[in-house]
Amino acid sequence: MLRELASRQPGRQTRAVYRYDTLQELERSMLEGIPIARAMQLHVLEYDGHRLALTAPLAPNVNDKGCAFGGSLISLTTLAAWGLINLKLAEAGAVADVYVQDSNVEYLAPVWGELVAEASAGPDESWSEFIAMLSDHGSARIRMAAEVSGAEGGQVALRFSARFVAKRRKH
Amino acid sequence: MLRELASRQPGRQTRAVYRYDTLQELERSMLEGIPIARAMQLHVLEYDGHRLALTAPLAPNVNDKGCAFGGSLISLTTLAAWGLINLKLAEAGAVADVYVQDSNVEYLAPVWGELVAEASAGPDESWSEFIAMLSDHGSARIRMAAEVSGAEGGQVALRFSARFVAKRRKH
Repeated sequence: MLRELASRQPGRQTRAVYRYDTLQELERSMLEGIPIARAMQLHVLEYDGHRLALTAPLAPNVNDKGCAFGGSLISLTTLAAWGLINLKLAEAGAVADVYVQDSNVEYLAPVWGELVAEASAGPDESWSEFIAMLSDHGSARIRMAAEVSGAEGGQVALRFSARFVAKRRKH
Repeated sequence: MLRELASRQPGRQTRAVYRYDTLQELERSMLEGIPIARAMQLHVLEYDGHRLALTAPLAPNVNDKGCAFGGSLISLTTLAAWGLINLKLAEAGAVADVYVQDSNVEYLAPVWGELVAEASAGPDESWSEFIAMLSDHGSARIRMAAEVSGAEGGQVALRFSARFVAKRRKH
């Protein structure tokens, strides 16, 4: 889906994509390609050019204790980070496959309502360097950060850090 | 489910439980309590008193690339570790809630077939100390390890390490 989007927009290098159909496209690619994302009832909530937020209702993502299942929380954060990288690649007109390499998760508080995960690049990362590295070397790494909010009292429920790699797709 | 099991067996302290109905009970408690475990078509494969193996077919756990979705792999390892702790608690006649506190995951190779996750206590951990700590203090921590096999050439596909806490259930 994003491959088509990117190839339709070969001249896009730096302009941020806020267009609704781009986010719809991302949501559709996740729901069509990943059955568990469908089971989670994942939804792309918003994207401001820097942060991507995904959401899912509690009911299909509940655990035996009635709060959010840890596996759903980590899936949502992983997909938020993966989705943001794909949006940034599409903005730059780059066509690459994105893989998670490792992740660290702290479960800080239970989530008793809707799951909301927000991802951004890690504090020392630069999207322009990431895109340039991919262009020059055919692959590039980036550390991503994500959080789940929604714990009682507005506190962070889960903190996620992960390394991803993008590899230029061979046609 | 495991609470009932434990209360039916108050004298069990150290004997390992290999009984098929215990594993069926564990599988049923995960499938009934966690909708995503049902969507994954999770199955308890085997338990030898030290290691618990869970499995799930590829089709419902696939990603956009046709291999296993990372979120499913980490859910399966987390549930294998969580399930093993619950089996050990049931063997000891202890009734406690088990929570994951943090996890580290390395994704080493893609899985193109059935997902199989095997969990055990971390190398420096002792089940008897864990049970004694829970009995004395009402809560106890343990580090768990898990791996996903099934990558091509028999190599490890994912390595998982996580800290869990058990808290004695208040009646």
